[in-house]
Amino acid sequence: MMKKRPKPVTTRPDTPLLDKVHFPSDLKGIDDKDLPQLARELRDEMISAVSVTGGHLGAGLGVVELTIAIHKVFNTPDDRLIFDVGHQCYPHKILTGRRDRIRTLRQEGGLSGFTRRAESEYDPFGAAHSSTSISAGLGMAVAADLDGKDRKVIAVIGDGALSAGMAYEALNNAGALDARLIVILNDNDMSIAPPTGAMSAYLARLASGRTYMGMRDLGKKLTAYLGKTVDRAITRAVEHARGYVTGGTMFEEMGFYHIGPIDGHSFEHLLPVLRNVRDNQRGPVLIHVVTQKGKGYPPAEAAADKYHGVNKFDVITGAQAKAKPNAPAYTAVFADALVEEARLDEKIVGITAAMPSGTGLDKLADVFPKRCFDVGIAEQHAVTFAAGLAAEGYKPFCALYSTFLQRGYDQVVHDVAIQGLPVRFPIDRAGFVGADGPTHAGSFDTGFLAALPGFVVMAAADEAELKHMVRTAAAYDEGPISFRYPRGEGVGVELPARGDILEIGKGRVIKQGSKVALLSFGTRLADCLLAAEELDAAGLSTTVADARFAKPLDTALIHDLVKNHEVLVTIEEGAAGGFAAQVLQHLATNGLLDHGLKIRPLVLPDLWMEQAKPEAMYEKAGLDRAGIVRTVFEALGQGGLKARVLAP
Amino acid sequence: MMKKRPKPVTTRPDTPLLDKVHFPSDLKGIDDKDLPQLARELRDEMISAVSVTGGHLGAGLGVVELTIAIHKVFNTPDDRLIFDVGHQCYPHKILTGRRDRIRTLRQEGGLSGFTRRAESEYDPFGAAHSSTSISAGLGMAVAADLDGKDRKVIAVIGDGALSAGMAYEALNNAGALDARLIVILNDNDMSIAPPTGAMSAYLARLASGRTYMGMRDLGKKLTAYLGKTVDRAITRAVEHARGYVTGGTMFEEMGFYHIGPIDGHSFEHLLPVLRNVRDNQRGPVLIHVVTQKGKGYPPAEAAADKYHGVNKFDVITGAQAKAKPNAPAYTAVFADALVEEARLDEKIVGITAAMPSGTGLDKLADVFPKRCFDVGIAEQHAVTFAAGLAAEGYKPFCALYSTFLQRGYDQVVHDVAIQGLPVRFPIDRAGFVGADGPTHAGSFDTGFLAALPGFVVMAAADEAELKHMVRTAAAYDEGPISFRYPRGEGVGVELPARGDILEIGKGRVIKQGSKVALLSFGTRLADCLLAAEELDAAGLSTTVADARFAKPLDTALIHDLVKNHEVLVTIEEGAAGGFAAQVLQHLATNGLLDHGLKIRPLVLPDLWMEQAKPEAMYEKAGLDRAGIVRTVFEALGQGGLKARVLAP
Repeated sequence: MMKKRPKPVTTRPDTPLLDKVHFPSDLKGIDDKDLPQLARELRDEMISAVSVTGGHLGAGLGVVELTIAIHKVFNTPDDRLIFDVGHQCYPHKILTGRRDRIRTLRQEGGLSGFTRRAESEYDPFGAAHSSTSISAGLGMAVAADLDGKDRKVIAVIGDGALSAGMAYEALNNAGALDARLIVILNDNDMSIAPPTGAMSAYLARLASGRTYMGMRDLGKKLTAYLGKTVDRAITRAVEHARGYVTGGTMFEEMGFYHIGPIDGHSFEHLLPVLRNVRDNQRGPVLIHVVTQKGKGYPPAEAAADKYHGVNKFDVITGAQAKAKPNAPAYTAVFADALVEEARLDEKIVGITAAMPSGTGLDKLADVFPKRCFDVGIAEQHAVTFAAGLAAEGYKPFCALYSTFLQRGYDQVVHDVAIQGLPVRFPIDRAGFVGADGPTHAGSFDTGFLAALPGFVVMAAADEAELKHMVRTAAAYDEGPISFRYPRGEGVGVELPARGDILEIGKGRVIKQGSKVALLSFGTRLADCLLAAEELDAAGLSTTVADARFAKPLDTALIHDLVKNHEVLVTIEEGAAGGFAAQVLQHLATNGLLDHGLKIRPLVLPDLWMEQAKPEAMYEKAGLDRAGIVRTVFEALGQGGLKARVLAP
Repeated sequence: MMKKRPKPVTTRPDTPLLDKVHFPSDLKGIDDKDLPQLARELRDEMISAVSVTGGHLGAGLGVVELTIAIHKVFNTPDDRLIFDVGHQCYPHKILTGRRDRIRTLRQEGGLSGFTRRAESEYDPFGAAHSSTSISAGLGMAVAADLDGKDRKVIAVIGDGALSAGMAYEALNNAGALDARLIVILNDNDMSIAPPTGAMSAYLARLASGRTYMGMRDLGKKLTAYLGKTVDRAITRAVEHARGYVTGGTMFEEMGFYHIGPIDGHSFEHLLPVLRNVRDNQRGPVLIHVVTQKGKGYPPAEAAADKYHGVNKFDVITGAQAKAKPNAPAYTAVFADALVEEARLDEKIVGITAAMPSGTGLDKLADVFPKRCFDVGIAEQHAVTFAAGLAAEGYKPFCALYSTFLQRGYDQVVHDVAIQGLPVRFPIDRAGFVGADGPTHAGSFDTGFLAALPGFVVMAAADEAELKHMVRTAAAYDEGPISFRYPRGEGVGVELPARGDILEIGKGRVIKQGSKVALLSFGTRLADCLLAAEELDAAGLSTTVADARFAKPLDTALIHDLVKNHEVLVTIEEGAAGGFAAQVLQHLATNGLLDHGLKIRPLVLPDLWMEQAKPEAMYEKAGLDRAGIVRTVFEALGQGGLKARVLAP
């Protein structure tokens, strides 16, 4: 993907103190007063590493002091430290025996960009999706309790992640269980996009110091307000009243002992609080820490997104390498097409779950701010909120990544599909996602959506098809409809001025042959065309078709392919149980397998594919040109070879 | 299912006032002071109806006054009224043109037991799963705003439903959007089971009046505490301080204007509050209403579960008809087996999401209270909490209904499967559920789980198999494992003292034949055996096999069935994309379809099956004995007929 690299920084930063820290136990020998120096060195090392690997920069920079302080105070790995999402874990990796591999982050065979159980005993629970850490930590705290162990469990979670219902469910349960769980709320007032939601506003009020303060401060305030010294009786009365008004902050209402907000970049704040909690914890504790994303690296501090996710970059200037795209990205094509349709139909609205730029919906928000809704990291709500809009005659496009749509699956079933409401689901990041690895791959959507009665399930073969599907979805008002498209740039086909309305359940034949049929669902079509060239050259006249729909199937097209070809290969960038399953179910039910059919369903392999460049992943999965050709030859066996020999 | 009926109540209650109310508009003509009488009549009518249909009783009885008050004050159906879950909607149905069909509730062809868009314009959003109403209502409120309409949107949600993260996500978003949504919190301190979670405790504190009160009461309290009259300055100071301490209740922190708690059985409380909100609403409002589940029917008020879900019953005594079971229910077999295993292995723990009795985990809680966790209506958290326990070497059984497991799907993928953690998933209510209809059917679990690399997916063919699978899951520590079983009673096979440990990925041949093979996944095995008898009698020697595993497949068994039979029928109680899809994928990939295979995958039909008795549903789905036999004959075509004629 990278076409131009920045000049590599060949000199590594000077890190005399960090060089002595191979594992957290080495921190015990470093004096508290030297920790700020260690933090500077750790920051330099992290910036240097990410400048050559790319990855998540801002989040890690924000928790350098916090990470050091936790490892200094607690006894990891026996004490369990869980980072929510995990994209802030690079400093943690450097301190926990992985510094020697830190420049392999997110590369094939290298360190994961997230925490991973398989990678280190210091990663007791892997992450990548948001808001799981409190649940996992609670499970671990309960386990420690059942084991009779005095183990500490620490979950570090960002303020953005608190907008997810799952985090609330876990807080609610932790408070009720009175478990010895330590939640560190890393409040940087920013997840990936600027935060949304009432919780975020609430945290801002807390962090501003205006809402939460000790009784001493309250007494001072009262004194100032009344213009006279408040006697102890009144102070006690106010304290008493306060207990009646509410129990305190929301976290206290949930059963947590709440400490903070404190300065997350100050060891003088962090160390005494953490030590106090370590030594005196009884029930669940929430420590509210305020940090700055991108802290300590001026280009990141100055950037609007705080260098959340970056390409390789120049350490001095902060200039990021930019891949020169061959074609517009699918996300951009989708967003532009949606804006165009929205101009023509005022019922179109957009919904994103904290991914305005990732999904491209920021473009819609720019043009129609009142018709675009960022609901926060809240996929369950996003789906049903869209269903409510659809019930009132709106045309909601609920744009989620495939992997995050999993979070709203029950809502897709129960609130959208059973009611037959016309919610549109643009599904971005369908298929492999490269460096983000298996947690972010979009593998299962075709299967779990095509299983639902009445659902229309599409996949775009290229960026022009994506435009057609945006328009088709906008025009289709009879029920739920989805269309999937991958991460990255398109194949470079010419884009129509406006998409066409596709006929529901109709595929298309791209190239007519007579012996081999390749039936593609999605963007593997390009490799099918390359494979067809090779097969044609070998004398195997090859038809290439684009199914467009996994549901409803184009049964006429499929019958034709079955009837007039010796071998049929289906191909999709999804797990077994998806498009091919629909095809096979149809063929079997209708007796079309009774008399023999060389059908080969190419799907994602049945394993969690590790991070790598997409091309390498396709090759490994057998979903590339070579894989398709090989499959055809193997299916034809002697016949294939014979055909090859007989070819003119 | 019903073997004995209670004596039918032939006399209908006397309801002179209710007889005048066919639609909510008829309420306008009834004086406020006559509403208590209307409530009594509505209650009588509802009790009478449910006594003959069975269904949800306690929830509806608790909201009789609230339902009347809402319809009296608001302008439904133009104003939108959404009942969360919907099981409290019977009084609403009676008041909204459906009284004539109220005695068809939950019967085939009758009224749904929940709200349904297709049933009435007074049901603007269907429900059945919990905690969706605020999201849907917010979508509708936003739509009204975009339309420039002064429409009111009212979501009625129980306190138990507030433990679900989805409700929190929606509150969070509603507060941020400042939408004109009215949330009525129906606080009866009880969802289905006694409530759990910190939120529940918080609501109890609010409802007790100890935490929230007006400034007048606060002044009184202070006076009493200080032993002297508090002057206005101090009162104002306290008010001021209160604003600093927090903004008020949690709901106020979330951006809602919070009213209450008020008495939900008093029209004198309800009507002025609702009218005030109707006339003065600006942003989101939460009205906290306290009600009593089962109110007004002494047998329900006295029962521990408040007659949440009842069979037909005698109105006078409250005695419920009990079906005389032929065999123990699957749920009970599972629970007993789990308790037995838990006695032998202290690492076994149980997790339920607010369904202790529905899943049978209450039995585990009785014996090992510290090893059983009811996390509330919180499936996302339940799954990851289980993963946390598994990461620490515990053996969690996370027992959910199939339909509710959909709520935790991303957590199953991301926190359990990708990490390969050995969480055990007992999946209850797999397949048809009868009277609860399509929202509760367990149709998709096999597909969405078998798609996941490394997952072991089982289905129990009968209650003895279920015992084997509980033990197998307990013993299997290499990764995630699930086993599905249906609602209702088993087939009556003898139960082993303890289950066996099954070999992973091995099915079993129940009956060996030579021409036809029936391969069952799950409890349709019994019908396969009946079908085999009929086929054998027709001269079609039939093999019957129990696959036990959808993943990993017993490929040796499948190869044998394919090789040695003329037709292979697979059968499962799940949607296409599940077990059959795995079989077909395997066969196609390995060329076993190349030379012809009469394979017929019987799956659930591709439609939302309406409520009916399970037997009728199986027949309609073609998944019963007759459907299997018919499928075989059709597959064999002339061959089948010939075989039949030639049979001795």
